[in-house]
Parts: sequence; structure tokens; C-alpha cells
Amino acid sequence: MNATGIIPILFHENGWKDLNAQQLQNGFDALAEGQAMMRLIAELYPICRSITGDGLRETLRLLQKEIPLELREVPTGTQVFDWTVPKEWNIRDAYVKNAKGERVIDFQKSNLHVVNYSVPVRRRMGLAELKEHLHTLPAHPDWIPYRTSYYKEDWGFCLSETQLAGLKDEEYEVCIDSTLEDGNLTYGEYFLPRETRDEVLISCHACHPSLCNDNLSGIALAVSLARALQAAPRRYSYRFLFIPGTIGAITWLAKNEAKIGNIKHGLVLTGVGDAGALHYKKSRKGAAEIDRAAAHVLRHSGQPHEILEFSPYGYDERQYCSPGIDLSVGRLSRTPHGTFPEYHTSADNLEFVHADKLGQALAASLEILSVLENNGRYVNLNPKCEPQLGKRGLYRMVGGTAEAGISEMAMLWVLNQADGKNSLLDIAERSGKRFEAIRKAAEALEEHNLLRKELKSVPQAAR
Amino acid sequence: MNATGIIPILFHENGWKDLNAQQLQNGFDALAEGQAMMRLIAELYPICRSITGDGLRETLRLLQKEIPLELREVPTGTQVFDWTVPKEWNIRDAYVKNAKGERVIDFQKSNLHVVNYSVPVRRRMGLAELKEHLHTLPAHPDWIPYRTSYYKEDWGFCLSETQLAGLKDEEYEVCIDSTLEDGNLTYGEYFLPRETRDEVLISCHACHPSLCNDNLSGIALAVSLARALQAAPRRYSYRFLFIPGTIGAITWLAKNEAKIGNIKHGLVLTGVGDAGALHYKKSRKGAAEIDRAAAHVLRHSGQPHEILEFSPYGYDERQYCSPGIDLSVGRLSRTPHGTFPEYHTSADNLEFVHADKLGQALAASLEILSVLENNGRYVNLNPKCEPQLGKRGLYRMVGGTAEAGISEMAMLWVLNQADGKNSLLDIAERSGKRFEAIRKAAEALEEHNLLRKELKSVPQAAR
Amino acid sequence: MNATGIIPILFHENGWKDLNAQQLQNGFDALAEGQAMMRLIAELYPICRSITGDGLRETLRLLQKEIPLELREVPTGTQVFDWTVPKEWNIRDAYVKNAKGERVIDFQKSNLHVVNYSVPVRRRMGLAELKEHLHTLPAHPDWIPYRTSYYKEDWGFCLSETQLAGLKDEEYEVCIDSTLEDGNLTYGEYFLPRETRDEVLISCHACHPSLCNDNLSGIALAVSLARALQAAPRRYSYRFLFIPGTIGAITWLAKNEAKIGNIKHGLVLTGVGDAGALHYKKSRKGAAEIDRAAAHVLRHSGQPHEILEFSPYGYDERQYCSPGIDLSVGRLSRTPHGTFPEYHTSADNLEFVHADKLGQALAASLEILSVLENNGRYVNLNPKCEPQLGKRGLYRMVGGTAEAGISEMAMLWVLNQADGKNSLLDIAERSGKRFEAIRKAAEALEEHNLLRKELKSVPQAAR
Repeated sequence: MNATGIIPILFHENGWKDLNAQQLQNGFDALAEGQAMMRLIAELYPICRSITGDGLRETLRLLQKEIPLELREVPTGTQVFDWTVPKEWNIRDAYVKNAKGERVIDFQKSNLHVVNYSVPVRRRMGLAELKEHLHTLPAHPDWIPYRTSYYKEDWGFCLSETQLAGLKDEEYEVCIDSTLEDGNLTYGEYFLPRETRDEVLISCHACHPSLCNDNLSGIALAVSLARALQAAPRRYSYRFLFIPGTIGAITWLAKNEAKIGNIKHGLVLTGVGDAGALHYKKSRKGAAEIDRAAAHVLRHSGQPHEILEFSPYGYDERQYCSPGIDLSVGRLSRTPHGTFPEYHTSADNLEFVHADKLGQALAASLEILSVLENNGRYVNLNPKCEPQLGKRGLYRMVGGTAEAGISEMAMLWVLNQADGKNSLLDIAERSGKRFEAIRKAAEALEEHNLLRKELKSVPQAAR
Repeated sequence: MNATGIIPILFHENGWKDLNAQQLQNGFDALAEGQAMMRLIAELYPICRSITGDGLRETLRLLQKEIPLELREVPTGTQVFDWTVPKEWNIRDAYVKNAKGERVIDFQKSNLHVVNYSVPVRRRMGLAELKEHLHTLPAHPDWIPYRTSYYKEDWGFCLSETQLAGLKDEEYEVCIDSTLEDGNLTYGEYFLPRETRDEVLISCHACHPSLCNDNLSGIALAVSLARALQAAPRRYSYRFLFIPGTIGAITWLAKNEAKIGNIKHGLVLTGVGDAGALHYKKSRKGAAEIDRAAAHVLRHSGQPHEILEFSPYGYDERQYCSPGIDLSVGRLSRTPHGTFPEYHTSADNLEFVHADKLGQALAASLEILSVLENNGRYVNLNPKCEPQLGKRGLYRMVGGTAEAGISEMAMLWVLNQADGKNSLLDIAERSGKRFEAIRKAAEALEEHNLLRKELKSVPQAAR
Repeated sequence: MNATGIIPILFHENGWKDLNAQQLQNGFDALAEGQAMMRLIAELYPICRSITGDGLRETLRLLQKEIPLELREVPTGTQVFDWTVPKEWNIRDAYVKNAKGERVIDFQKSNLHVVNYSVPVRRRMGLAELKEHLHTLPAHPDWIPYRTSYYKEDWGFCLSETQLAGLKDEEYEVCIDSTLEDGNLTYGEYFLPRETRDEVLISCHACHPSLCNDNLSGIALAVSLARALQAAPRRYSYRFLFIPGTIGAITWLAKNEAKIGNIKHGLVLTGVGDAGALHYKKSRKGAAEIDRAAAHVLRHSGQPHEILEFSPYGYDERQYCSPGIDLSVGRLSRTPHGTFPEYHTSADNLEFVHADKLGQALAASLEILSVLENNGRYVNLNPKCEPQLGKRGLYRMVGGTAEAGISEMAMLWVLNQADGKNSLLDIAERSGKRFEAIRKAAEALEEHNLLRKELKSVPQAAR
């Protein structure tokens, strides 16, 4: 995956100046970027991940080939707020053999066959007893469900309804060759610094086994974002977390309380590869800058999309938006979890995610970050009446069309609203114009000494 | 009328804890409660009430059999703000006899036949002169209108258009055997105390003669509420007023100015027995806690309903919401007065009100009061990330269904929003969940030491 | 044009007390007023105006016959904020003659034929070269477009597409007998004083040549308004500006900075005579008193209308609403400029504007100003419960119908809301009643000592 194709489009020396939203939507080779993400997803797909253990470690080490991820290990038993880092789970093999010794359920064929975090078991039992440990999806007889038992020691197998129907009433040999022992919780962290301490958090969960949309798509998008951002001039620092869901976010927050205050904006990335529309779920604050930036970008995307109100259910935004943390972190997804039948089943496979959808999610993410990067406040240096744009070559003579890149109306809006209090996003929202048009207008006016950037960064209060 | 059937459902030792909104809507024998109200209405129906006099007194004395009402007498001539308590009106008989000596209009058949507050008259006159004192409803030829002349000394008869058509051009004997003399204005007051001085006002007018919906229905509902509340633990004191309209409310307010500040919430009850949808009319403040509680309860009732903006016309909310009083008092009705043809006619009779509608109005009133009683503010004692609900048996293991009574989503909402500023009603509104679900979740979390009630009662400002 | 017909309706000694909004909409001889405006438009139509020069001067001198306008002259080269007063342009004649010496384009037939501000030219040239200086409207082959070149020295002719088609490939004699020399920018100002310094600005542009709607209609409306207001008692002073667009507004603001703070409200009048609905464009503040007054009047007008959000494009509201000026100035128009094909063409002629539409625009303007004039704050002197209106003859006994002029509901609304903070417009908005009904109710209550005007004028903050 090579992100250099994006970089010249998005950035130049002084910032994100050349990010052209139109190109992002129509061009910038979203498909090629999405295909690179698909290759990473395919590479990670077979690994049996969980919230701890070697599958998670192996995944993070493969990501280290893409970005300079640091791996952190947190020992079992570590107290993290109200929670305790659990034992480490590892699994080598698991099966159910019939009387003939044939593997009728085989972990080697799909790691979804074993209830994640199953304790070791090696016994013989009849079908009736076995059935107490079997999980199927009657509504989708050919799909294997995904089940976990992290915080209650138990074991079980998942299989298709069709498989179950084929099981005879005979004795079975049941084997789960797993270990559940003191060890570590592993997560990956990549910090991309900038001179200021203000940072943007990008978080995705990396604990699901062979499921593509949930959440290899989020992992691949975070990697692509990191690669795009690392080569670019930036106003913010960026922190990427690849963590086990819930316990990973809680662990990071508990062990990094001093850093939480630096996080000004954040995105949880999950389920971004399916065919559905992009959905942005607002932060707990509801009108944080990231909420407004995301809504603005999706509204102007020309594609179907949904803005969801905050709710305390979902992915790790639950932790980032808990009342004692209360970060401005939203979530970018496509079809929300739990509302598509393939969710948490073997049908969330390589065919369920699409290169073009992944590429579009990258474009939208970059455009949202571009709004945050460029959302300055400006002061009109000629606030009494309009300045004479014509004598500066800014009016009519430059054409003022979308192609030429600077809209006269956008210039008039910026001049009218640039009182040092309105941000460019405020102006974009009031004018109904795309942020990029407003930013370009501000840039042109600044070059003609009609506008001055408000240097004292006024933090945008949640509204 | 026995309200004990409600009490075990609504209350237990520590408050309204067992009020189950679902039971209130579907069950709790709303019909039986409504039938008891119907019996009271039927008993009161024949009495000729007015804004003063023995009919009003007799009505209040009958209510004393139900609840320990205290009767107050305020002498004629007492100055009450801009008004003066009027002379007391009493009537023994009234009729119009034709030349044959037959009573062609007879007060004994319906007290609506006499214009309320008619001065005494005993004269003979021809039809032409008589007609100047007759009132009919041409649009409803069989109905008798209800007319009053409280503040202008006059007399008159009301009759059906059909009756009028039968009157021949002959001499009539006109008799109104009434007195209009110095006396008292009577009203009933029942104060149900609680340790704090904060109180809820329940007010209904008791001055209309044989009219069932307006307002024997309001009187019966107030009695049922009082009976239900008197046996229950309460956070608030409750004050019930059974008063003549306008002058009664003004009199009470003028003579009890020192108590007005204790009234935190209030409801005017009127016209709650007809077949129409429940209507809640907001207080002058427009977003007082009672306004939000009532809107919440009606919104979740699953039945047609309307929320009306405040206007300075209507019943005694006009006085309670005058700018110098400005209480948080709304009005609960069914079809608003003046918008149904039976309003202020003999058709507002025992057939116009219905036991099931009265019972539902009681259920809604109790649920509104339950919201006020339980609308505390809580502090999440584990605000950094979610607490581990599973290890406390609060997650999944309890089922989390509506039947089990504690919704997981409701617990997550309470934990997320319980910052000591949001009330449970705030949380119910933001989450879209029914108040009762939120309250139960808070109760469960409090029992597990995850939540603490904010003891310092923060008064909810009008918004 | 005689405005005395309006004055007895609108005013009496103590203010705008008799302005009856209903009469303004239905009657008050809007048609007669509009016909007077049409006569003024017809008189001004033939003159070749521009942003400077004798055509503008002649126009203003004709207006001096109607109202005591003062003419101001500002020399070429005067610096006005970021702009410079341009050279003065005058034109005597212009034509294009064909080989036979016939005037194929003739300024004497329509002053639109010459690009406004064309430099002098007297040359012979072939059709090809001539065409580089010709402007047509292919979509409307019989119309002459209106073109200007104020800030770039150039010359040209405008003609119909049909005329252009008739031009043969021969030599032409081209003459523009104009001068572009140091001189003055002229504008007209009429200040109608009142004891306080608070003033209302009425501004219209007077720089367009033979175009009726844009903006002879605005000029005629401003004249009618001035005539109506000069004879009337007023709370505010009124300042009328008849100025060249853009440069005139900038010049006035630059030379009168000390007076800007006195302007509390303002209206730009333009394009008010076409057949379209009235459009009010809000000020930059968006909820200034003028914005609310105009929206209120149009909402209650019973006629189609539109309220437009502020945008920094349009007429001189661009300057009045620039961030360093930021006046509460809105714009009253009919069909917005640029959205009708006749805009800036010879089709914006005497047939495009209508007496009845002009009269209705006058009625609406007067009603908007009447709201501003009368929008006081009052205090209910009997705030505890309702006062007894009946004993004062204010209730029922006066009928309370619209004809009688004082609505009971309006009185109840005023009494309920008159806490010294709500203005009459606030009360009109909350009650849904027309401002005039609310004002009359306040007047009646004040006469009965139930209401006192809040003497300390609380300036209405922009909201």
C-alpha cells in the first residue's frame, strides 16, 4: 500500500493547502487506495485474534510493516479503572470429532468455530451434552455465528445450522487446545507528533478474529490514514490506537490519564467497508468541532449518508465519551453494527467489504481531518464596507468559477464573517458553501493582505 | 371509591418506587377507578352550584366524605387583589308559568334553566318582554345553554329552542325565588403535608351546576388523586383546591400570598371525562419541569394526545400564571373547552363522560406526579469509562428485558449522563426512553454503589 | 403625488396610534399612492443616470420638487475607506452610423445602448472590430442589455440581438460623445429629525439609467415614505439616502462615521414594483428588531411573501452590513435581482412595474416602520391575577370584536406578558396576533391605568 499518490494532492509545505475536496470525492484514486486496504485485510483475515494473545500480537506485528507501530504489553491483573486486565488467551487447535474420528467441527477451517476465550477442554460426550455448548444461527443456516465469553469462564463451539443438522446422536471427542493464563494485554500505538501538544485520536478495535468489516476495515483505514498523515505537514499531532475493544480503550485511558487532556478531537473507525452509506455518530457533546466537521463533509459529499445522535452503546466511543473522560470523539462507520444480518457471522468475509467503499471512507476521513486542520479564525483587515476586490484582481477578472478555484461569493462570505470569532467552518455552515471553497477564499484574501489569521488559537467550545 | 387498589402498585415505603408506568397504562384497573369517579359525578350532578352559595357548600360537604377537606368561608366584600368577593347567591325555585298556570320553564327539572346569579324576580309579563330574558341554542334545538351573570345584576332563563317555539303569545308568571345578599364565598382545601415545604398544587373549579365534564370530572379526578396520594410516601406536600372559577383562585392567592412560593408545580384539572384525547396546556414558563414531565408522559402513553402552548385564556391557570404569580402550573384536560358543541350546555351530561376516560386521566396524572416525585439528579461514582456491569450481575445475566424491569440501555444512559446536573427526566428525554425505565436503572445502579443521589436539591430552573 | 391621504390614517398627535394595519392592507388607497409613484417613475425614466454625472444630478433635483432633499457633492479622488471616488462621467450623445450615415445604434433612442461609463470614442471601423464592443442578449433577441464599466476604462454599445443581425459587413462611424473627468460624485440626503438621536435609515440606489424596477421603484417608494413621515409625529428621526450603488453607500459611510452609531434600524429599498411577492432579506444580525418587524408584517399580510436569510451579495446592505459597520439594515424587494429575465435589460420598463404593487410595498413599509415606532415595553400595574376588566368596561361589554378594535385576547396577552422586558413585538410573536391588535390593547389598558410604559428605553439587543 503506497499512500504517496495522495500526499501531493492533500498537502504542501504550509499545510493541507492543496486538499481539494472535489478531487477527493471524484478522483484521488480512491479505488487504488481501497484496493491497497483490501490487500491488508486479506492478509490479516485468517488470524485468530482475541482481546489478548498471540493472534492480536501477530496482527499488530504485521501492521508494523506498514507504519512504525509500537506494541505495548500490560500484564494480567493490572487494575484499569473499574476493570482488571484479564488472563491471556491463546489457542492452537480445537475440534469436535465424531465416532469415526472425523473432525465435524474444525477450528482449522474457521477460527469462528470456537467461542472466543473458551477454556481448554478435552472430553468425550454425547450429542445432548455437546449441544449445550453449540451456537448456530437458524435464520441463516449456512453461516457460523461469532461468540465470545471473555468475562465468564466457559467454552463452546459455533457452527452453521446445516452442520448441526448433520450431527448424529453418537459420542463425540471434544478438544479445545487453548490456554487461559496470566500474561499480557497487547495493543499498538503510533504517535505522529507535531510541535503543539494538541492531538487527534484515531482508534480502532483489533480484537475480532476472521471478520472483515468488523473490524479489519477499520484497521486498514487507520493504517492508510496514518501513512497519509505521516508525510504531511500538520497542525495537530495524531495518535493511532489499535486496541482490543472495551478493555483496550479502558486500559489505554487508565494508563494515560495525563495525556487525555491533549486530545482535542477523535474518531473511532469501524465497519467502513460494506456497501452501505457512511454514518457518523456524534460525540457525547453533540456539537463538538469534529461533529460539525464530519456532518459538513458528509452533507457536501453528494452521497447518501446519516448523522447519528450520540448514544452510550456501540464501540469504544462508549469509553472515550464516558462522563469522566468526555472527549470529542465521534465514530465513522458504514451500516451500523447490529443492523445488518452479516454482523458477527462468517458472512462478514472478504466478499462483504469493497475496495471502492474503503477508498471513499478514506477520502471522507481525510476531508474531515482537513477541516479540523484548516479551521482557523480570521480577521477582516478592511472591515468597514467591502474592500475593492476588482483593483486587486480578485473580482470578475479572475473568473470566479469553481474551476479557477476561488469563488467570489466565498470571498464575500469570508470578508463579511471574518471578525476573529467565526471559524472557517462557522462561515462554511452559514454560507452553505463547502469548507474547501471557504478556505481557498480565505487563503486568497490573506495573500492580498485583506485578512489576517487570528494567531491566538481560540479553542472551539462545544456548543 | 376506594383507591387502595392503586396504592400497592404505585408506592412502597421509600417512595413511588413501584409505580410501573406500563401497568398504569394497560392495567391498574383504570376502569374500576373511573367507575368510582362516575359514581361521585352522578351524586354531585343534580346540585345547583354557583360561585357562592349553598349548592357549592353542599358539594364540598359531600366531598368531605371522600377526603378530609376543610371548608373556608370568605365574606362578601373582601378585597382580593383587583377584585371584591361578591354577594352570596342562593336559589330555591324558579319557573315561568303560562296562562293555565303550567310551569313551561321549570328550575326543578334542570338548574340550567335559570341564568346563574339571577336576581330575584316575581312578575307577570307578555311573551315579548319575557323573550328579552330568554337564551337558547338555535344550532342545537334540544339543548339548554348554560349562562351566568355574576358581575352584572340581571336575570334570565335558558331553555331549548324547541321549548321556546312552543311558547304562545300570552301572559306569563315569572318567578325566580333567589337571594343575592351579603354572605360568603366558600371553597374547599385539603393539604397533604410532607416534611419539606415544597408543594404541588392540584386545582379544580367547583362552581358549575349540572355539567358533568366541566367540571365534575375535574373534581372527581382531584378526589381520586388525593386519595391515592394520602396513603403514599411522598417527597412533596400536595395542596388540593376545590374553588369557584376565577374569583376562587384569586381569593386563595390573595389570602395566601406567603404560601405561593412553596408551590413548585401544579395542575389545573378540568374536562377530563369526555371521549377526546388528553391535552396538556403548558405553563406560562413553557418549559417548567411539570411541562416537560406531562409532555413526556403523554408522548410515551401510546395514545393520541396534544401539547398546547400557554395562552392567557382558559381556566384558573390564567390566575396561577399571571405575571405577578407566575407559578409552574399547567392544565390537564381532554377536548379543550369551547371546541366541542356540548360545552356549557345540558348535553354535557352523565352520558358525555366515560369511566374509562376518567381512569386513564387518573393514570396519566399519577404518572406525571411520579416523574416529579422521582426526578432526582445523580452522580456516577465511576465516571471514567464504563463500570464493569457484568461482574455485578447487571449485564446480560439479568436478561435486561422490559419484563425484568431493568434495561441495559437505560443503565448505560444513566451512567453516561449522571453528572449531577442532568435530572432523570433530562436523561429520559435525551435517550428517548420512558422515565420509568430510567428511574429503575438509576435505582439498580444506586443499589450497586455505582450512583449517588445528589442530596443538595438543585431546583430546576425554568428553561 | 400627495401623501396627505395617508397621514390621517397613520398618525395622530401622540404617534402612529391610528395606523390600522387592516386598512393599510385592504384600503388606504394603495392604488392611488401607487399611481402617484408611477407618475414619478415615468418622469425619471428617460434620464441617463450613472454613478456620477449630470443625469444623477438632474434626477435628484427632480426629487427636490417632492421632498426637501439636500444634494451633496464629493470630489473625484476622495478616499473613502478602501475605495476612491471615481472621475465624473457625462454623456451627450452616442451612435453607430452605417455607411449610409444612418444611426443603426442610437443613444437618443435608449440610453441603455451605451455601456455606462464608456470613455469617449470617435472612430471608423469595420464590423469585426466593432463587434468586440457590442453586447447582446441572444436568449431575448429583442431586448437591450444594460452593461457598465465603472472601474475599467473601456467603451461599448448594447443592442438587441435582432439589431445585431441586421448589421452588414461595412465600415461604421462610431461616436461616444462622453467625458470622463475630475468632478464630483453626487448624492441626495434628506434628514427628518426628531428629538432623540436614534434614527432609521432608508436607502435606495439612484444610479441606474432607464430601468424602472431597478431602481426607480425604490426611489419612488422612498419619496412616498418620506412624504408620509415628514408630516407625522415620530419617535425616531429618519434619514433618506438617494445614492449611487456601492460607491455611494461607501462614500456616505466613510464621510459620516460619527453618525453611524445613531442608526438603529434601516431598510434598503429596491425592485419593489414588479408583479412578484414581497421579499424581505434579513440583516447580518439575522434577528434584529427590523428583521422581526418585517417578518411579522409580511407574515400577517395575507399575501405571498418570502423571508430571505442574509447573504453578503445584493445591494447596499452589503456595505451597511459589512462587519465593521454592522447596522441592523434589511432589504425590501419583490422578485430578487438576477432571478427574473427582465433584470438589467430594456424589458425593465414602464410596463414591468405596477401601481398596485408599488402601493402595497408602501403599505408594508409603513406597517414595518409602525411596528418599530410603537414597539414599547410595558409593565402590568396589576400583575397578581388578572385585573377585573369587566368593571372597567373592557370585557365583553365593549364587544371585543375586531371591528371595535380592541381584542379581549390581545388584552389578556398584554397583561400576561407585560413584565417590562417583553416588547409589544415579543408579545405579538408569542400570541400569534397582529402587532396592531397588541398595540391597541396596550393603549386601552394604559388608558385604564392597568399598564405603564417602561420609560427607560431598553435597547433591543440583536438576538
